[in-house]
Amino acid sequence: MYEPLTEQKAIALAVRLGLFGKDALLSCKEIGDGNLNLVFRIVNERTNDSIIIKQALPYAKVVGESWPLTLKRATIESQALRTFASYVPQYVPKVYYSDESLAITVMEDLSHLQIARRGFIEGKTFPNISEHIGEFIAKTAFYTSDFGMNQQQKKKLAQQFTNPELCKITEDLVLTDPFFDHDTNNFEAELRADVEQLWQDDALKRETAKLKRRFLTKADVLLHGDLHTGSIFASDDETKVIDPEFAFYGPIGFDLGQFFANLLLNALARDERDRKPLFHHIEKTWDVFIRTFSELWRESNEPYATVSGVLHDVLRDALTEAIGFAGCEVIRRTIGLAHVADVDELPLERRLDVKRHALRLGRELIVQREQLPIHAIKQLVQQTVHVNS
Amino acid sequence: MYEPLTEQKAIALAVRLGLFGKDALLSCKEIGDGNLNLVFRIVNERTNDSIIIKQALPYAKVVGESWPLTLKRATIESQALRTFASYVPQYVPKVYYSDESLAITVMEDLSHLQIARRGFIEGKTFPNISEHIGEFIAKTAFYTSDFGMNQQQKKKLAQQFTNPELCKITEDLVLTDPFFDHDTNNFEAELRADVEQLWQDDALKRETAKLKRRFLTKADVLLHGDLHTGSIFASDDETKVIDPEFAFYGPIGFDLGQFFANLLLNALARDERDRKPLFHHIEKTWDVFIRTFSELWRESNEPYATVSGVLHDVLRDALTEAIGFAGCEVIRRTIGLAHVADVDELPLERRLDVKRHALRLGRELIVQREQLPIHAIKQLVQQTVHVNS
Repeated sequence: MYEPLTEQKAIALAVRLGLFGKDALLSCKEIGDGNLNLVFRIVNERTNDSIIIKQALPYAKVVGESWPLTLKRATIESQALRTFASYVPQYVPKVYYSDESLAITVMEDLSHLQIARRGFIEGKTFPNISEHIGEFIAKTAFYTSDFGMNQQQKKKLAQQFTNPELCKITEDLVLTDPFFDHDTNNFEAELRADVEQLWQDDALKRETAKLKRRFLTKADVLLHGDLHTGSIFASDDETKVIDPEFAFYGPIGFDLGQFFANLLLNALARDERDRKPLFHHIEKTWDVFIRTFSELWRESNEPYATVSGVLHDVLRDALTEAIGFAGCEVIRRTIGLAHVADVDELPLERRLDVKRHALRLGRELIVQREQLPIHAIKQLVQQTVHVNS
Repeated sequence: MYEPLTEQKAIALAVRLGLFGKDALLSCKEIGDGNLNLVFRIVNERTNDSIIIKQALPYAKVVGESWPLTLKRATIESQALRTFASYVPQYVPKVYYSDESLAITVMEDLSHLQIARRGFIEGKTFPNISEHIGEFIAKTAFYTSDFGMNQQQKKKLAQQFTNPELCKITEDLVLTDPFFDHDTNNFEAELRADVEQLWQDDALKRETAKLKRRFLTKADVLLHGDLHTGSIFASDDETKVIDPEFAFYGPIGFDLGQFFANLLLNALARDERDRKPLFHHIEKTWDVFIRTFSELWRESNEPYATVSGVLHDVLRDALTEAIGFAGCEVIRRTIGLAHVADVDELPLERRLDVKRHALRLGRELIVQREQLPIHAIKQLVQQTVHVNS
């Protein structure tokens, strides 16, 4: 039966699992933010070896209120980490143990790394993050798609990763509420005129509707589902993707889009002259993605994989989706329920400028997504600095 | 435990279920074609009341060979009939009972109706079939889509209708094999040059790849999955859709496309002057579909349903898919494993003409699908009578 762990019980579990040596001297600290999960860090004080025990809480605390949230997300998370590990073990924490009824995942401690969002805010560049994330997305996407996996087996995997409750969070908070006058939205009073203009923008909403429909219907590849820079631990050399509790079968461009958007939000929050590393990461991620995906393509057993133009169409589709979903993410992090520290930590006047810029950029990403090449993203950032009269 | 029924055991089951009165005098006859299913018709000789007991066999006999085929399809079939009945009870046989382990569905006997394909071959017009099928598809599509059903509930329904083995039959025999030199293909030696030209047509295959990808990935609405004129019982007044063992969550235009294609194949097999009722049915089905779907649209709880243009985009998407999948079906019924009696019963010379016409028509439906209005389908039939030089 489910019960929340205490630090004591977390240690007892670690001992029972035999993850440390016999004469280990274990200490434990709960280090989670307490909103969605308990996170226990257990250290052997003699060797400094450590592990993480993550336990889902049966509710989420957002905006002060708590709403019930399925514990099944812990199972989704551990299964997603294991599935990803079968393709790219270098980019996910090792899972040592999971317990479905306790909603627990016991895994590698990554405390030697830093959450990428925080690092970027501090001005770090993480020179290898785009190489790593591009490879992570390309390999997990290809091998879980109809091109890289037995197509019947894929349908069963998609069935297993049916994740309605977590998907609903994205459907509402990313793809719907920010585009309507909805009470989950959260923005500075000074932005009201800009936001109302967006709510009245039927051309934009017609395109956002298409993106939402893709998210709702296109069971294409196993996605992380929440791949922002807060879901990535990094250093100069290493990159680890964490927290795939939103994992589900969705459109191939979605993870790319979330990642691009969070790089863009960091870029917008910086001085113009300091944005180059972020644009570099966006373009490099895409380059590594298409290079890796195209190499894997030769392994495909799908007969159409040999037909001229098909790979091109799949990649274009991915880029179109990535740009569109990036636009949605930029907008929802600006006026929706959950913001990003990159922008929220700015002083008010600067923040308002950045947010207005973000709204214009997000819109153009969405409505222009069909034909844009990857390098046009940084041009769009430039073109949306000022209001277009 | 599964065992195939005998006529004796079928009667015993009917008695046990109490489907006839106490003093019924029951007779039973197995009337199936024996390829995939046993079909027992049980009649009360005193009243002429009757029922059907359908039992899936654990193999399929096609081209003389038998291959194993999941019994789960009986469960899919009875669940699909029940789901459809909750929206359009007038267009499906009543289900009285089902038994998962015996792979049995006990249902209404429709022997007073005729299989629509056979009727069309005999020159019947079934004046109401398009009104009924248009309404059947519109209502089942809307109410099982993200626009007509709770979006979380829909994901669970899609999970329940995961149908990899039956989907694979369509993926292979409809969407792949006919476009490649594959040993399941089956066509007259005289057609070889035409067929080889099709196999070398990369522009066509690039488009077919997109349609296959939609079929593989787009979990949009609960489909019948095999809605050709052989899956429809009809009279002048009544229409009943049977045999939804291929049911799964797929692209909204697929059932429409299969139905259009089989009307087109019958049209091609007729003298030109007798084709009008078939074209009428195609256009009427579409008109009823959009009229019904658009009325239901007003009930939608999806916030984007109120945004200008979104309904238009969904309907255009449906038509584009319908035309494209119709093209695939026309081609596969011409050169693939399973043909249609409409064409196969023609004398050789006429049959070859019709099949060459069908190949040209199928190709154009696929490559031109994006922009064609519904009435352009009959024009395409005209334009593809002769080889375009």
